[in-house]
Amino acid sequence: MRPENVVLADDGKSVVIIDQTLLPNRLEHITLKTPEDFYDAIKALKVRGAPAIGICAGMGLYVTMNALGGTDREQFLTEMHNIAAYINSSRPTAVNLFHALRRVENAAMEHKDGGIAGMLEAMRKESIAIQDRDVAMCKAISEYGLTFVKDGDGILTHCNAGPLATSLYGTGLGTLILGAERGYTFHAYTDETRPLLQGARLTAYELDKAGIDVTLICDNMASIVMKQGKINACFVGCDRVAANGDTANKIGTSGVAVLAKHYGIPFYVFCPSSTIDMECGTGADIKIEERDSEEIKSKFYREPMAPASVKCYNPAFDVTDAELITAIITEKGICRYPYTESIPALFGKDRQC
Amino acid sequence: MRPENVVLADDGKSVVIIDQTLLPNRLEHITLKTPEDFYDAIKALKVRGAPAIGICAGMGLYVTMNALGGTDREQFLTEMHNIAAYINSSRPTAVNLFHALRRVENAAMEHKDGGIAGMLEAMRKESIAIQDRDVAMCKAISEYGLTFVKDGDGILTHCNAGPLATSLYGTGLGTLILGAERGYTFHAYTDETRPLLQGARLTAYELDKAGIDVTLICDNMASIVMKQGKINACFVGCDRVAANGDTANKIGTSGVAVLAKHYGIPFYVFCPSSTIDMECGTGADIKIEERDSEEIKSKFYREPMAPASVKCYNPAFDVTDAELITAIITEKGICRYPYTESIPALFGKDRQC
Repeated sequence: MRPENVVLADDGKSVVIIDQTLLPNRLEHITLKTPEDFYDAIKALKVRGAPAIGICAGMGLYVTMNALGGTDREQFLTEMHNIAAYINSSRPTAVNLFHALRRVENAAMEHKDGGIAGMLEAMRKESIAIQDRDVAMCKAISEYGLTFVKDGDGILTHCNAGPLATSLYGTGLGTLILGAERGYTFHAYTDETRPLLQGARLTAYELDKAGIDVTLICDNMASIVMKQGKINACFVGCDRVAANGDTANKIGTSGVAVLAKHYGIPFYVFCPSSTIDMECGTGADIKIEERDSEEIKSKFYREPMAPASVKCYNPAFDVTDAELITAIITEKGICRYPYTESIPALFGKDRQC
Repeated sequence: MRPENVVLADDGKSVVIIDQTLLPNRLEHITLKTPEDFYDAIKALKVRGAPAIGICAGMGLYVTMNALGGTDREQFLTEMHNIAAYINSSRPTAVNLFHALRRVENAAMEHKDGGIAGMLEAMRKESIAIQDRDVAMCKAISEYGLTFVKDGDGILTHCNAGPLATSLYGTGLGTLILGAERGYTFHAYTDETRPLLQGARLTAYELDKAGIDVTLICDNMASIVMKQGKINACFVGCDRVAANGDTANKIGTSGVAVLAKHYGIPFYVFCPSSTIDMECGTGADIKIEERDSEEIKSKFYREPMAPASVKCYNPAFDVTDAELITAIITEKGICRYPYTESIPALFGKDRQC
């Protein structure tokens, strides 16, 4: 099984992606060929999710250089750096985007001796390898996750950390999807995740597509489904984990964790180990992005749903305190509280994290 | 100051209401004269909130009988009962609606000796008295509420329990509005209250109109504003309080209460004492209404925000456990946990609750 969200054409002349802005109403694929195609697709969130963006950009750099071809190696490298910088500027704060482009560039530079053809082949292989590594990482995370659930469990999800945002399986949703492949029957309860509704638009779509029993709820219904005993565990992805285990994720995640603790339900964070930022001591060091009021007041609606004169507070993320997190599940293994011990142990004592 | 949401015309020939379905985008008044006008306005939620519905229906019965007039007392009473039954059928589960109509009918029957004119005058007085009693009750609740706050406090609200739903002040919002009249500066944080957005559409509108500093948030942002220390107290109304203090209110209320407990913030329920149902032992006895999936998936939106094949769970209310409630504030006084002692004490030992 190969990822469907970002697909490199066999002839190396294009990348086909699912246009995520049209989901869940329309499943449409678009073909990207030029640097502008890739820039626009990333900027307009047609491809979203940090790993998926990186994968798309890496393949994009290969595809555009493959079309350009040429015979002058130095000119080729100059063009490549220019196009990489241009694609990277589509979402300048996305670290995966930068790293993926850098890897594909490095592959070319390391194969200068092979000529243009050799460089292109190295770029092709590296761009596919980035995707393959993400698949392997998501699968490893999902395998670890399966040790925490049993057949028939009810799982509450928040936001979206599934295959669309990654490659296959995803992080937060990977355990559900891998488990379903192996015959587990899960009952997912999916927070719609206001204001951008990633839960309703993407998670509900992905779980439904994977054949998992999924029930969409509003964010404020998490309490009642937990109280009713419908939830055995909460699964979330994350954007950044501090060295002490405090975890930044989509707004509302901390509320889910508080509810889970109150109702005695385990709360699991799924993430690539690269998301753990040892330079960041605690959640207090994580700056929270504030977004536009219109996302709350008018986006998606036929007409505004709040008075124009009323202000909004619209933080995109919140920080969940480490002590509310039952375990942080990475591709390298599982960390448990206190994370100041388990996270360094994960990386190995010798590694400077 | 008189209520603005439901106004009986001086000539007794009409009732003018604010069409709440058009808020917050348009403030429009509509004039109701015929039984059909009142039936339609209540059924279509142009007037909503149990107390406001009762007030409107009582005045509606007077206005329609005043237009009918006549000379035969028995025929008058027969017509009156028929119209009352018709208006009552607009929202058959609304207890205030039934009680208000019954009170206006009783006023007429008790004044049969005064002829048609005497009966109509009694109906007019009773319909105004229902509204006056609601104003007095809301004001008494709000006065008690003011003992729990200080100038400058941040108050989190959920759903809408303001003047539009009642008469003046409201229950859950009354303390804020009465306090603002007296020069308190509050900072209100208003949950938008999915799926029907009563917080965004109505509470934000009402608090803004009352000159209170109000910030609209999505329901899943309550945790972050509490954690940031912005909230000194949570204020909610309620739909039904069980004898042990368990409280049914708009979906999401129980989640707010759990968060408040976690962050050490007091959580107050505001309600008329008539909302306390001594026949109902605990929250487990309260049946929760489930509503249509389309409220979550498509209502208000330009296009559906979730796949058609995905099911939703859409409970309209949830039950907040008594031990999460700092105090229940009624027009008769304040109850504190354990409510099995404080609620009977509120009603007096001799009263059969």
